[in-house]
Amino acid sequence: MNELFDRIIDRRGTGSSKWDRMKAGFGVSPDDGLGMTTADSDWPTAPCVIEAVRQAADHGIFGYMGVRQPLYDSVAWWMGTRHGWQVDPDWVVTVQGLGFGIAMCLEVWSEPGDGVAFFTPVYHEFRIKTEKAGRIATELPLERDGDTYHLNLDDAQARLTGREKILLWCSPQNPSGRVWTVEELRAVADFAERNDLLLVSDEVHHDLVYPGQTFVPMHVACPEVTHRLVVPTAASKTFNVAGMRVGSLIIPDAGLRYAMRGRLRQLDYDAASLGMVMTTAAYSPEGAAWVDAQVAYLQGNIAAFDALVNAIPGVRSLPLQSTYLGWVDFSGTGMDFDEFMPRIRDVARIAASPGPSFGAGGERFMRFNLAMPRARIEDAGQRLQRAFSDLQ
Amino acid sequence: MNELFDRIIDRRGTGSSKWDRMKAGFGVSPDDGLGMTTADSDWPTAPCVIEAVRQAADHGIFGYMGVRQPLYDSVAWWMGTRHGWQVDPDWVVTVQGLGFGIAMCLEVWSEPGDGVAFFTPVYHEFRIKTEKAGRIATELPLERDGDTYHLNLDDAQARLTGREKILLWCSPQNPSGRVWTVEELRAVADFAERNDLLLVSDEVHHDLVYPGQTFVPMHVACPEVTHRLVVPTAASKTFNVAGMRVGSLIIPDAGLRYAMRGRLRQLDYDAASLGMVMTTAAYSPEGAAWVDAQVAYLQGNIAAFDALVNAIPGVRSLPLQSTYLGWVDFSGTGMDFDEFMPRIRDVARIAASPGPSFGAGGERFMRFNLAMPRARIEDAGQRLQRAFSDLQ
Ligand SMILES: Cc1ncc(COP(=O)(O)O)c(C=O)c1O
Ligand SMILES: Cc1ncc(COP(=O)(O)O)c(C=O)c1O
Repeated sequence: MNELFDRIIDRRGTGSSKWDRMKAGFGVSPDDGLGMTTADSDWPTAPCVIEAVRQAADHGIFGYMGVRQPLYDSVAWWMGTRHGWQVDPDWVVTVQGLGFGIAMCLEVWSEPGDGVAFFTPVYHEFRIKTEKAGRIATELPLERDGDTYHLNLDDAQARLTGREKILLWCSPQNPSGRVWTVEELRAVADFAERNDLLLVSDEVHHDLVYPGQTFVPMHVACPEVTHRLVVPTAASKTFNVAGMRVGSLIIPDAGLRYAMRGRLRQLDYDAASLGMVMTTAAYSPEGAAWVDAQVAYLQGNIAAFDALVNAIPGVRSLPLQSTYLGWVDFSGTGMDFDEFMPRIRDVARIAASPGPSFGAGGERFMRFNLAMPRARIEDAGQRLQRAFSDLQ
Repeated sequence: MNELFDRIIDRRGTGSSKWDRMKAGFGVSPDDGLGMTTADSDWPTAPCVIEAVRQAADHGIFGYMGVRQPLYDSVAWWMGTRHGWQVDPDWVVTVQGLGFGIAMCLEVWSEPGDGVAFFTPVYHEFRIKTEKAGRIATELPLERDGDTYHLNLDDAQARLTGREKILLWCSPQNPSGRVWTVEELRAVADFAERNDLLLVSDEVHHDLVYPGQTFVPMHVACPEVTHRLVVPTAASKTFNVAGMRVGSLIIPDAGLRYAMRGRLRQLDYDAASLGMVMTTAAYSPEGAAWVDAQVAYLQGNIAAFDALVNAIPGVRSLPLQSTYLGWVDFSGTGMDFDEFMPRIRDVARIAASPGPSFGAGGERFMRFNLAMPRARIEDAGQRLQRAFSDLQ
């Protein structure tokens, strides 16, 4: 199956955020550098999704689409068969990607000046979205324990200011790839309940989970939390269709759903027809088989990357339970960020995501997107080895 | 060129608003009825747009798109070459279709309880969007003068309540297809100026204008109005890509633009990559040639429809200066809406848009979407003749 993922595809000149804005955003030229930032993949989406696009081209009419049921049904089918979560198709609210979906949650369920809490290190956009909305971020640091992260809910409790209205929860966690256990999920739900927080459980990375780990949806772990639960999810990461901007908020509670739907209707919001068609095509048995192949390929990428990078003294790529986002700790080198980052950028010529942007705990990390052909992963590992060869 | 437009394409089962929601929305079955409501076309978009979709399928990667310049440049090019309007690409703000774009204008530049004025009969969504946003609609009736409509700005002035903050202006007008003259445009701009109204000049129908008429952009007619001007426009009607939900607000004033961009950034709004690529492909010399062919074909459709419909005693299809939306006056039949509409629905089995939904002046009209193959247009005309055959 590796011909699906091994092929090097030139994304320069396609408008790609990762490749075409690499020089401006990260100071690395795409001509001799490697783009390992933005969380999309450098290989094509599943053949069944491409086929749906071809069929749309053959039909040729891109008029108004008024029927959403196939999309809702496919989301429910996917959650049921892949994640053991019985979702009523009525619970699915389509949004313009999860960035927009989360921004909508902040607007609908909090006011300017309210607090928004999240456990760090976490997807940097949680803070950015919070601040853009005029809400105030409360960082709740996870506890690092060797190669993994744990919750410290006593510490988290102490950090709450009382103004928090929403908890943005990331499950699995980006970065670090933690796949949370049922006990942890229940503890977080209980934390939200005790503090009367809306629980926004962002589960977008749930499909890219490695053997030995089981992803459990928040709603399965803790159905009691329904009345305060909103679950952003999408085919975007799993199927490399983030550019189409189709995401879902799965909202089991009728009252919460009513509020969100009302707000979206007021904005006259509607997703791109072809994006909905692509998600529907993705959430299928053919799509599932492709995802399995992709997960196997990613495992190989992670193994290759970790082997090369962990051979550098003082550098540690944390073992990933999920996601294709390598989370690499440079603290053992004794260098601080301003020393190791320029080596990565200017010597290895790799554009990677700076750890500090993910909040407390990320100070001496970099995040590397590993969703690229194996040959490039090996190239990346070797570049990093060379950039730190004085440590050998 | 007619092979581009003559082919009957079955849209049933594709999710089409017009065809797949016809029975539920209008009580006409798509199996033996004709869908003539929603303003999209029953023929494929331009070959250059389809080719862009095929190329995207071949590339297969639908990741994050971070480069908008080609889109902005193509919009500016189109306005310059097709409409003689020199648009700086920086003025272009992408929105999720014009429904969303207009809803955003209402949110950014008015408050709940403020008034929103528009000249009727007009695109029914102007009222709906106003009310969904909690703003109050002020209808300013156009004056009917035989086969055409005129502004009566003294009457309009008298109808303003003083709470209006925004004028939603439709140019060309949907329905009726009026192409406004420079004098009329300047008078409207002056009306907005005198009453301190933001002028939202919706010019989405500007490309479908018939010989003898010249569409003039508001900004060309009256550059002095720049500081209060926002121009919604899109390739959606012209190229039958409304389902992709890509529209533009062209905002020449830096301050207004800053406010709109800021709001969209707060919402983390971004359009579907492929929708942007399709618009870019459409706004090209190949796209322009296709539009010319389409306009010629539509002229033939309008002539065929009018000949058949105007042969019915008391029925008058107003001559269209622009748009593919036939605006048909049934008042001469002596019937009121509840009498002629069921004949159209149940006897002719045509789903058409009810005139009253377009506001004052539409009471005894129906709007018929004429963007369908000629054979269907003739079928529609004959169905209407049969439905009113007792009048012959
Ligand atoms: C946890 C998480 N949520 C949301 C997103 C972004 O989703 P979208 O592209 O739909 O805005 C990402 C992207 O990296 C993510 O990691
Ligand atoms: C005047 C006018 N504005 C806007 C629209 C809708 O635009 P969109 O599909 O981009 O929301 C229409 C559709 O018929 C229209 O006639």
